[in-house]
Amino acid sequence: MNFLEERIKKDGQVRAGNILKVDSFLNHQLDTELLDQIGQVFYEKYKDKGVTRILTVEASGIAIACAASRYFKVPVVFAKKAKSRNLDGDLFTSTVHSFTYGKDYNVTLSKKFLGPEDKVLLVDDFLAVGKAMHGLIDICTQAGCEIAGIGIAIEKGFQEGGRNLRNSGYDVTSVAIIESMSEEDGITFRTAPY
Amino acid sequence: MNFLEERIKKDGQVRAGNILKVDSFLNHQLDTELLDQIGQVFYEKYKDKGVTRILTVEASGIAIACAASRYFKVPVVFAKKAKSRNLDGDLFTSTVHSFTYGKDYNVTLSKKFLGPEDKVLLVDDFLAVGKAMHGLIDICTQAGCEIAGIGIAIEKGFQEGGRNLRNSGYDVTSVAIIESMSEEDGITFRTAPY
Repeated sequence: MNFLEERIKKDGQVRAGNILKVDSFLNHQLDTELLDQIGQVFYEKYKDKGVTRILTVEASGIAIACAASRYFKVPVVFAKKAKSRNLDGDLFTSTVHSFTYGKDYNVTLSKKFLGPEDKVLLVDDFLAVGKAMHGLIDICTQAGCEIAGIGIAIEKGFQEGGRNLRNSGYDVTSVAIIESMSEEDGITFRTAPY
Repeated sequence: MNFLEERIKKDGQVRAGNILKVDSFLNHQLDTELLDQIGQVFYEKYKDKGVTRILTVEASGIAIACAASRYFKVPVVFAKKAKSRNLDGDLFTSTVHSFTYGKDYNVTLSKKFLGPEDKVLLVDDFLAVGKAMHGLIDICTQAGCEIAGIGIAIEKGFQEGGRNLRNSGYDVTSVAIIESMSEEDGITFRTAPY
């Protein structure tokens, strides 16, 4: 098992409804040393791809994106989930359905931070059905930028998001891929995810 | 001028309604090298305070909290702005009014991540009226933890948040304090903010 799989085994909790709670280290409390290791995996995989920006969506993706940014030495941009008064000017917008929150929401990104000259690494903490990631890809399409790769901390391999993205030709790197999980039998991982 | 004041002068934009746009480096696009410098200022100020956790609120505070966490080598915990299905169990909750978004919202934190044994550094990207910070202080009061200090990237010194916190006895470190700003006359800073 790699470092993230070991941590999930140790501190992750499986709950009803395909929920994996990793809030003690990944998305409520944050272990920044672990995040650095995740960022380093992405860097080793995509360091020769000419990445110019790392794109994620608030909030949980920000910490992972920042960890990766320190290796790539390029800025993070994060899509916002609500339109604030401070976001003026032209925006890229995409609509995303969240299963976690049970509703649709818009993700927006100021047009000045992404353009046709960019090669983007997309990152997020989770990949399940892939709705949030498709919102980010939609924004990249609107911006006309190139997607260098997709870096995910934890992929739920038993849901279709990762398979669909790979079938569409995206280069997806998930640090841990969950093959199956249940409250009774615990968690099994797909071998050698990256 | 210090590094953050210089960056604000260079890339910040003053807009009507006391809005300072720093979205090209602090809260939409993120310059993680600059964030590291901010985290280091907080560390130099509070490294002897026995900090056990760094507390912030999503989303913009997360990146700064992570940068500080790498110096302090303690976890980040971030309060969430919406109740998700994945947040179960006992929660600390406080209500905050956002002038930026023009509405009230709840901030919540799982009780398992903060307790009476903790010494907490509170951090955020902006301090203006201080509503978000009072929400975090309220959560710390509920948790019974000690507040070691408050680290802010940019304080709007012409609004009452910083003065009120210091008058209440909190040790506030703002890397840049804006004395005044206007679209016509630009930005002036308070001398030697930390």
